[in-house]
Amino acid sequence: MKEDFLKSIDCLDKGFVRLVDFMGDDTAIVQAARVSYGEGTKTISEDKGLIRYLLNKKHTSPFEQVEFKFHVKAPIFVFRQWQRTRCASINELSARYSEMKDECYLPRIEDIKLQSKDNKQCRDDKGLPHIDARIALERMKAIQEDCFAQYRELLDLGVARELARINLPVSTYSEMYWKIDLHNLFHFLKLRMDSHAQMEIRVFANALYELIKPIVPIACEAFEEYSLYAKNLSLAESNTLCNFLKESPVENLLTLIDESDVLSKREKKEMKDKLGI
Amino acid sequence: MKEDFLKSIDCLDKGFVRLVDFMGDDTAIVQAARVSYGEGTKTISEDKGLIRYLLNKKHTSPFEQVEFKFHVKAPIFVFRQWQRTRCASINELSARYSEMKDECYLPRIEDIKLQSKDNKQCRDDKGLPHIDARIALERMKAIQEDCFAQYRELLDLGVARELARINLPVSTYSEMYWKIDLHNLFHFLKLRMDSHAQMEIRVFANALYELIKPIVPIACEAFEEYSLYAKNLSLAESNTLCNFLKESPVENLLTLIDESDVLSKREKKEMKDKLGI
Amino acid sequence: MKEDFLKSIDCLDKGFVRLVDFMGDDTAIVQAARVSYGEGTKTISEDKGLIRYLLNKKHTSPFEQVEFKFHVKAPIFVFRQWQRTRCASINELSARYSEMKDECYLPRIEDIKLQSKDNKQCRDDKGLPHIDARIALERMKAIQEDCFAQYRELLDLGVARELARINLPVSTYSEMYWKIDLHNLFHFLKLRMDSHAQMEIRVFANALYELIKPIVPIACEAFEEYSLYAKNLSLAESNTLCNFLKESPVENLLTLIDESDVLSKREKKEMKDKLGI
Amino acid sequence: MKEDFLKSIDCLDKGFVRLVDFMGDDTAIVQAARVSYGEGTKTISEDKGLIRYLLNKKHTSPFEQVEFKFHVKAPIFVFRQWQRTRCASINELSARYSEMKDECYLPRIEDIKLQSKDNKQCRDDKGLPHIDARIALERMKAIQEDCFAQYRELLDLGVARELARINLPVSTYSEMYWKIDLHNLFHFLKLRMDSHAQMEIRVFANALYELIKPIVPIACEAFEEYSLYAKNLSLAESNTLCNFLKESPVENLLTLIDESDVLSKREKKEMKDKLGI
Repeated sequence: MKEDFLKSIDCLDKGFVRLVDFMGDDTAIVQAARVSYGEGTKTISEDKGLIRYLLNKKHTSPFEQVEFKFHVKAPIFVFRQWQRTRCASINELSARYSEMKDECYLPRIEDIKLQSKDNKQCRDDKGLPHIDARIALERMKAIQEDCFAQYRELLDLGVARELARINLPVSTYSEMYWKIDLHNLFHFLKLRMDSHAQMEIRVFANALYELIKPIVPIACEAFEEYSLYAKNLSLAESNTLCNFLKESPVENLLTLIDESDVLSKREKKEMKDKLGI
Repeated sequence: MKEDFLKSIDCLDKGFVRLVDFMGDDTAIVQAARVSYGEGTKTISEDKGLIRYLLNKKHTSPFEQVEFKFHVKAPIFVFRQWQRTRCASINELSARYSEMKDECYLPRIEDIKLQSKDNKQCRDDKGLPHIDARIALERMKAIQEDCFAQYRELLDLGVARELARINLPVSTYSEMYWKIDLHNLFHFLKLRMDSHAQMEIRVFANALYELIKPIVPIACEAFEEYSLYAKNLSLAESNTLCNFLKESPVENLLTLIDESDVLSKREKKEMKDKLGI
Repeated sequence: MKEDFLKSIDCLDKGFVRLVDFMGDDTAIVQAARVSYGEGTKTISEDKGLIRYLLNKKHTSPFEQVEFKFHVKAPIFVFRQWQRTRCASINELSARYSEMKDECYLPRIEDIKLQSKDNKQCRDDKGLPHIDARIALERMKAIQEDCFAQYRELLDLGVARELARINLPVSTYSEMYWKIDLHNLFHFLKLRMDSHAQMEIRVFANALYELIKPIVPIACEAFEEYSLYAKNLSLAESNTLCNFLKESPVENLLTLIDESDVLSKREKKEMKDKLGI
Repeated sequence: MKEDFLKSIDCLDKGFVRLVDFMGDDTAIVQAARVSYGEGTKTISEDKGLIRYLLNKKHTSPFEQVEFKFHVKAPIFVFRQWQRTRCASINELSARYSEMKDECYLPRIEDIKLQSKDNKQCRDDKGLPHIDARIALERMKAIQEDCFAQYRELLDLGVARELARINLPVSTYSEMYWKIDLHNLFHFLKLRMDSHAQMEIRVFANALYELIKPIVPIACEAFEEYSLYAKNLSLAESNTLCNFLKESPVENLLTLIDESDVLSKREKKEMKDKLGI
């Protein structure tokens, strides 16, 4: 039953992701692919093999034939990253029409971390000293309350909503309907489930993935295999590796490849080609 | 039941449009719109009024929340026009993978018309003299047979499919899965149901429209009212008309507007503003 | 000289729009259109006529061949509306990488207006009583200072930038590079120069328009004529008007049309058709 | 001088690619990236390093800030593949407006190859026996002549252009203006310069690449390094390789990595991480 898949997952302190509707599943991918390849694919008889082949070879258009619609509640600064993905349809709550509810994101104390020194865009693994984290949290909470007190005062004075809202913080929760096809969702997930994505959006990306996995399990498995956990070797990396292998005994590697029960026959051949062995 | 809507309509001599799946209906439009406008829209209580308002004011994003998937069989020259619409997902039969079936579009004799003299891109309303139309039709049929005979010969010689197909005519039937949201479909239909669209694509556009109408009847009615049959007055046309009305007795027009049972109260006021009366 | 067009216009209290680069002008539109219509358009000899015809008939693809790149500084809440336009390329300042400068938008006292009673999304024409507007402004200024004081404190504690910024207000100024083609820019401008657009984004839209006008003057004139100032009559409005005209003496209207020196010959005929006279 | 870059390259027997205009070069990529990263990137001082880093890490938006416009003449079946890329602007010659010129693509005799047995979509490396290739070529030439003779006859009878053209072969040459940004062009080139792309479109893709290389040499070098010639290892391939390396003496590999003068310091570290050594 479709309804069994339409679940909601809580995210952060007050947010959620809810699957509202969807169209298609693994079989819809196969169905669309078989239109393209017509009679030609009769020999690739197995659906799973076809889906894995399509994703491996970046024949991505059949994955566009599956569509998902989510209801999302998240802080504005998360939406600002989220909505950089352009191939999706969005209906977001408008603060011109509606008064914003007094709900802001407040991180858990253990998530308040230091600025990373290695990576200009990330937080460190190390948290602040507990005493400082407590101070930071108090400070955040206080300013959020002040912002909303000020918002309410302006509304009480009669200031137009579109103007009264300009000093709400980007931690304010908003809501949207978000519709996207599976190909573009995979692209979004690859970016946002990555360890370099900001933790607060990663939480939502993981929730999205959890919701779709039972609907398109084969496609998701292929996504993990050929995209999410795949490793891209640059030309220089590839050359370096091949140079090493050329001078090394590779019997064991050949055996490992030949005996793999994950790699398909075609993939075994391709792996040897990639490594020049 | 969803299955009741998944019908097929024959188009031209050998083509068809079949609705394969869809997600959402009129209520999905309302649902998405209410996220945007939140509590703010409680007074626009009626769904129909809201949908009409949205389309009239070009708040088009809620219409993106409805999605349709079609299976289409049409001649290549029709697909070439069709696929200019970029906001859609396509999986088309590939002549590199599959041998093309010997099926070409042959117009009905009454559709063989003269080149229009007024409009460089159109055929005239007037047909060819019957004798000439017969000749034209015979000629078309003959060349289609020759093209496919030649195709088959090349395949028999062992020529690769991707090369053997290069002299198939653009009248050859192809197939595709085509997925599009309602907003972009309306845009497509406005272009392709227009009297200046080539007759052969208009047939398909009309069939698409017939298939979706029972699913989104209110949205379609609004589309006809504010888009398909609406008339755009340029600034100069508008000025000319207003100048005329300024000098004319307009009591009757005011009465017609006030007594209209199609125009909403808001629209009556807006119409008077538009006409400067 | 290209450089003569690369100007900057100040917007709001601390923002600006600057034209960084562009590709093509009115002649690029004509050039692209002539590829489509090939030899067929030799008779539409005049560029201006062709551009007006294209825009009137919604043959919009040639307008995509002109491209503009802007550098924009605007408050985040303006960017949130701005970036709903998906057919554009964006590079925005990231608060994960950089510390945000202490710059917020503060409205002029005369722009602090009451919530509109007619229109749920707009402010009224009427301002607040001066005493209240003063209070509102003071309140806004104070909270902006508090937000940035808090931001600085968190940074001083060592909190990661990506987290410290979450309570900055949506009035904070950000910057972006924004690249868009003329067709999509016209679409953006029609939405954002409209009187229902929020005043703060309208200021930027007007500035964009002012910057491109000298580069594509003919296209802009056609945009005003057939789009920006055009009036769309719904089917019901059109029927009401035609019913009135059917019963009225329209000689004067016919004369006004025929004697118009703005309407082209083709447009005169089309206007009569539209009005059924 | 800009004009020095606006060259044309002949493709196939009668086609070409001509660079008509462009906006931006390598410095435009850096300029846009520095807006995003603001003061934060001062330490990545070198432009080349920044561009390589962006492409390696798939920060692709700055590459959208460079734009190219081409004039292309190619057979219809090539355009049908070409125009699957949706993020581009197209103005193509219309056979409704203009009579098509009697120009079809005829392969060189050495390009007439057998259907591949391994790959359902490709031609083999092996050509037809010379006698058969001659027959095939004669047959192609003859049918092209017949198609155009038939086209001319229909036009002479007065049949509308839009109908007379339906039996022109997909080998007929058409023309278009094609505008695309660098990010999307790289995506197109990766697909179409690939050895599995049909030879006839590969010729055009190679020509496009040759035209842009002098304009964005650093970006192209990075494209080759991290995309075009990069190798993607699936999770299973990666695990297999890492398992092998875990059991092998890798001193030589570590030395090769450390002594590489292509890999940056960061990349050396990342390569070791990827290989688990």
